[in-house]
Parts: sequence; structure tokens; C-alpha cells
Amino acid sequence: MDKIAPNTIKRIAMITLNDIKQAKEKLEGVSQKTPFTLATILSKELNSQIYVKKENLQLTGSFKIRGAFNKLSQLTQIQRDKGVVAASAGNHAQGLAYSAQHFECDATIFMPEATPLTKVSGVKSYGAQVILKGANYDESYAHATAFAKEYEKEFIHPFADDAVIAGQGTIALEILAECQDLDMIIVPIGGGGLISGIAIAAKAINPNIKIIGVQASGANAMKTSFEMQIVSNSKSVKTIADGIAVRDATPMMLDYILEYVDEIVEVEEQEIANAILFLLERQKLVVEGAGAVTVAAMMHKKIDVEDKKVATIISGGNIDVTMLSLIIEKGLVKSNRKMKLLVTLMDKPGALMDITSILKDSDANIVQIDYDRNSVKLDFGEAHVTIALETKGKEHQNTIRENLKHNGYRFKQI
Amino acid sequence: MDKIAPNTIKRIAMITLNDIKQAKEKLEGVSQKTPFTLATILSKELNSQIYVKKENLQLTGSFKIRGAFNKLSQLTQIQRDKGVVAASAGNHAQGLAYSAQHFECDATIFMPEATPLTKVSGVKSYGAQVILKGANYDESYAHATAFAKEYEKEFIHPFADDAVIAGQGTIALEILAECQDLDMIIVPIGGGGLISGIAIAAKAINPNIKIIGVQASGANAMKTSFEMQIVSNSKSVKTIADGIAVRDATPMMLDYILEYVDEIVEVEEQEIANAILFLLERQKLVVEGAGAVTVAAMMHKKIDVEDKKVATIISGGNIDVTMLSLIIEKGLVKSNRKMKLLVTLMDKPGALMDITSILKDSDANIVQIDYDRNSVKLDFGEAHVTIALETKGKEHQNTIRENLKHNGYRFKQI
Repeated sequence: MDKIAPNTIKRIAMITLNDIKQAKEKLEGVSQKTPFTLATILSKELNSQIYVKKENLQLTGSFKIRGAFNKLSQLTQIQRDKGVVAASAGNHAQGLAYSAQHFECDATIFMPEATPLTKVSGVKSYGAQVILKGANYDESYAHATAFAKEYEKEFIHPFADDAVIAGQGTIALEILAECQDLDMIIVPIGGGGLISGIAIAAKAINPNIKIIGVQASGANAMKTSFEMQIVSNSKSVKTIADGIAVRDATPMMLDYILEYVDEIVEVEEQEIANAILFLLERQKLVVEGAGAVTVAAMMHKKIDVEDKKVATIISGGNIDVTMLSLIIEKGLVKSNRKMKLLVTLMDKPGALMDITSILKDSDANIVQIDYDRNSVKLDFGEAHVTIALETKGKEHQNTIRENLKHNGYRFKQI
Repeated sequence: MDKIAPNTIKRIAMITLNDIKQAKEKLEGVSQKTPFTLATILSKELNSQIYVKKENLQLTGSFKIRGAFNKLSQLTQIQRDKGVVAASAGNHAQGLAYSAQHFECDATIFMPEATPLTKVSGVKSYGAQVILKGANYDESYAHATAFAKEYEKEFIHPFADDAVIAGQGTIALEILAECQDLDMIIVPIGGGGLISGIAIAAKAINPNIKIIGVQASGANAMKTSFEMQIVSNSKSVKTIADGIAVRDATPMMLDYILEYVDEIVEVEEQEIANAILFLLERQKLVVEGAGAVTVAAMMHKKIDVEDKKVATIISGGNIDVTMLSLIIEKGLVKSNRKMKLLVTLMDKPGALMDITSILKDSDANIVQIDYDRNSVKLDFGEAHVTIALETKGKEHQNTIRENLKHNGYRFKQI
């Protein structure tokens, strides 16, 4: 690679394949060798061979346990006896808590105050102490590092740490053990620990493998920095892919990425949501936003995968079910499996029965209904009905609209 | 086994381990060797070692491809050239369509008229012809067999066929290759093809393994028949586990089950829904009702698994996302992560702001709100607000109720 990072003083040593192989030994019998499977539907649609590495099925629901465990395994017994500290909104917290329990070491995790209950109880269930402090990740991070310093506990960084990076790199060893002649590996980028570890291992084994990173466009500091070859931070981040919602590009991580990564692309929120729904419906997998960006990038042609042999990392599955439910609902409307109509009726006995009987004949299932005769937009003697319907696609929705029109109803889709 | 089936004339031959081994060879390179993984959270909660076989991650989203493919592989080329026919509401249809495509053989699938669009397009995507005919499965079945007879096509039964049973049995070979010293295998029962195949293979390899079947209580004909040792059909079936909603117990299948199965238990609808939500949230898996009954049976103590080494079959993941969304919503209310309140307000400017500010201070997120001042239950000058809130558990809900009471609001939970 001939790229340089003029803004950073090159560190003397980066980690090597050997560090990652050692991490693999440490993780033996701890982390799960997650499935690496041909995705037949995607492969067919994109005319390529796409394999997915399902780290959402990893213990604690994401790959993060690999790095956290490897890091803890390298601490001295004295360090472990003092306990470890981290700041995290989710996956790193669970990975570290699980690992700390394994080493019988106290873990204190600082989480933002608004963290959903499920994530908090996930971390607590592995025996860690949770301190809800700070309005966002950056504030929690500040509290956590101050706390670690005061109590002389080891602070475990979620990505800017060579032992952590080496742990994440073990994913590449598992992938390449099954399939060496890959054209590319597609990896989500938040802080950059996952892609760095994977790239180092993969390029050492087969330098022809291209490493492509994917960011959410609402949190694309590393992509911008990569393109400018200089650290360029965002003012703020906003994405449903909370696992990779990292505001700043860390210089150390930019070094790694400039050295080992070939290209970074970005995906929009709606594209991420589409990928989550696709993985849920067609692959039977629960995948969080950060885990779905790689599939989103392929589905929406951000990366040319045609005729190529591709490994894609699905990095985690820790998505709030409330968010999942929202994504399903919006997805159903977008794919014409749900529609909402505002119909104007005569406010008289039988009016509602008439319209419901037309809908029955159209084979449309009513899932919600609201009746309003007080709207100022209505003439006296009229009423508004809002009806939500389950439908069977575009054609079916056309039929329903035709049938209503044919029977003289005024309505609009909302 | 000393059980007998006095009502049936014993068939001369049942299939053997050898038939199942042959099916495994046929399936080599076609069906996926699905993950068989220790479920750490369940194991910890139930104080046992529980492994799950994830057939929801199988091609076509369920195990059915194993049996269908094995059956087609045994037809003559002449039979395949004439085409095959099946009746199915879902999984068998997809498994057969996929297999028929592989053998370049025409497949005609009869499905009930109300089949959701996604299932229809799933089957069509594998190149099969779909005929929507019949109000329910039994009617479609009658149309399909008549059609097969008329056009001299082979009708492929979803379970009462030795080649199909042998195909399903290959799951046991994969499980036992990884782990021979199991105490029990827990398997869903619809028609009984899956459990028969698994039981024959497992008992032949290790006769000490107990085989436990699970039915939905809304479709428990096989359980009743098993206990009475005579075919006893249901009048009707009703369960969210549509993949095992089989009304009648087929004599041939009862023979197998009396011979090889040790016990059958049943689970209620709410228990199935709980298991689906658990698998979604904690295991990151999309599992349909039929696939979740085994986990439901363990979670709700229908089977004693303490201190035992258990393999559990998760048979499929083809659940409609609309149903999934409903299960999530109801699950959130049940687990105190959502609440709905009907609050009585003074109908005056500022009233809504007052209550929303109390809710903000209580850290409760409003997800839906309705304002009504026309209810006959109200005094003049009063209004009803219905508010749906996202909450963080029981304690948080108590706090919210306290804060509202403390500020003089009248309300009830709905």
C-alpha cells in the first residue's frame, strides 16, 4: 500500500498475524465458532457467491467478546484482581462483562443514562456492576476513565487497543480456514477495531483479498478521514446503527485502516432498515443496525460484488425489539403489505357496515379503525374513518382502491 | 418398547438407520449442516446442558427440504418428468419447490386461498407453480390429490411417506455426530414425520436417548392418540404454530410414534409466544411457532431437563413478520416495557403540557397519544387522554403511577 497518513507519527509496531493466532488459542473453548454460510438468495440476486459470518449468533450477541476476552487474558493477575472498567452503550459492555466473569474479575461498566433496560440487564446478568452516568457515550466515557484512574482499575478501550484488535481478528482466521480464495471481505466500521483485526489476518494469509469497510452515513468520520488521509471528526452522529455510531476517528485506528483497508463506502438509514428486514424475513436472523450495514451496502449496490466470492460480516444482533417492531411496521407499508386509508362516509347507520363489507369482498384484513365525525374539515352529516389494512402487494392495493372508487367512496391514502 | 397399537395392523417394515444414512448421502452438498449450539442462557436458567439444532437456518427456512429432497431423489426419471404435486400451507411447499428445481422437475403446489403473500412468493421464487385453492389445508389437500391423479403426477405427502421420514431423520445423524451421550432429544410434532425420523436414527445409535415430542395444545391429536394408543382425531385446530396445526393423526405415523417416542407434552399459545420472543431477543433467531414449541416446553417446565444433556430441535423460521410484530408488542406489555394509560384531564389550554412534563420527568417515552373530549363518560370540561408509554420495567411503571397520583391525576391502566 502506498497510502500515507501525514498527520500521524507512525507507530513502531502494528500487530501481526501471529498476535491474532495467539488470540485464537486464548479464545479456544470460550467464543463460539459462528456459522459461515452461503447466502443463497442474496447470491442469486446479486449474481455472486456471498457468504455471511454470523457473529450475531456469538455469545453475548456480538463479536465484541473476542477482543475483550483476549485483552483480559493478557492482564496480570494483580491487574485483574483490581478490576476492570469500561464505557459502552451495549456490545462491548456485554462482551467485557462475560469475559470478566470468566476470569473472576470485577467489572464496572459505565452506560449512558438512557440505555434501554434490556441492555442494562444483559450486562448485569453476567455479574458486572452497571453505573448509569452521562447523557451520551462520550460523557459516560469521561466518567469511566476518571473512575478507572481514581481506583487504579484497568480501563478497557472498546477498539483502540492492540489486544482487542487481535481478538476481533480471529474472525478472519475462522473464515479463511473454510474458504481461502475470497475476492473480498466486507466489514462494518465504527471505531475500526473489527476491520483492522480482520484485515491484518486476511491480508497476511492472502494479500489479494480486498477489504471493504462500511459506515452509516450518519456516522462516517472514519470514511471522511480515510479519504482525506487525516483525522476528520464529526460534530455529531445519528443512526439506527448504534453499534457503530462513533463520532471521532482515533488516529491509531486511522493508521491501521490506511495501511490495510482498500475502500470504505456508506449506507443510508433506510437502506440499513431494509437490510435488517431482509435478514429477518429471508435469513431468519435478528441483526442490529451495525450488523446489517454490510448487507445493506451490497443490496443497494454500493459495492460491486458481481461474479465475486465475498465474505460479509454480520457483526451483532443486539437490537431493541421495539426498534425491530418499528422497522417491521414501516417495512410492511413500503412493501405494500399494509396500507392506511382516510375514507369519507355519510354519518348514518349502516355506513360503516357498507364499507367493511366492500373491504371483506376485496379480501383486505382490517387491523385498525378510527371513526371521527368532529373534524372541522367535514361537512355536517359526514364522518371520517381511518382504516389500516393488511394487503398482499401492489396489485391487491390497486384492486382495493378500484373497489372503493367503484362504490362511490372518497378517500385518500395516508 | 412394550407399547402396542391394537387398532392398527402392524406394517411389515419400518425404515431403519440404514435408510437414513442413505438419505444423508443424497443430501450431501444440498441441505446445510445447520448449527448445533449450546444455549448458554437457557442452560443456566434450567440448570442443564441444552443444545439447539437450528433448522430455522436451513435452506427454505425449515427442515422440510431434507424429506422432500430425499423423496424426489428416489423417484424414477419418468416420474420426475411428469412432475410432482403437493398441498401445503408453507414449509413443505418451499422444501419441495426447492428440491424440484434442483431435479429440474415441475412442481405444482396447492395452497389455501388465504396464504400470506410472502409464503406464496417464497414458493414461486423456487420456480414452482402455485394454485391457491381451498379455504383451508384439508380442502387444498383434496384438490391436490385429485389433480395429481388426473394428470398422473406423483403426489408428495408432507410426512406419511418413508422416504420423507428418512430425510428428516438425517438431523439426528448430524446431532449425534457432534454429541452422542445425550439424555434426550426434544422434537415438535405436527404430522409426526420429523420426530419419527429422528427417533429411529437416535435410538439405533444410542437406545438410552429419550425422545420427547411437543404439540401445541390447540392441535394435539397425536398426543391424545399416543396416550389412548388409538387414532383419535381433533374436530378442529387453532394455534399460532401453523407449521404443526395438523388435525388428524395418521395411523402410519401413530405406529412409528408408539414404537419410538417416549413421551408427548403440550404447550399453550402464550407459552409458544413467550418462547418466540425469548429466541428473538436472547438467541437472535427468528423462529416460527412450530419451531418454538420445544423451547416453550422447557421454559414452562413441561419437561424435566434438570442436570440433563438435551438436544432441542428448532424446526423452522417461516413466521409472518406481521405475527412477529404482534408477538413483540404483546410481549412488551407483559414484561412491563410498555404501558397504556387512560388519564382524565381538565379540557383547557396547558393541560396536555402539564401531564407530558410529568411523564418527561418520570423518564417515560410517549409512543402514542389520543385526545378525546366527546366521551359520554366525561363531565363537561373534562377530556380523556390515552397514552402509550415505553417503560423500563415494573419499578419504573410504579414510579410513573406514583408521580401521576401525586400530581392529582385520575387514570386507569388499559
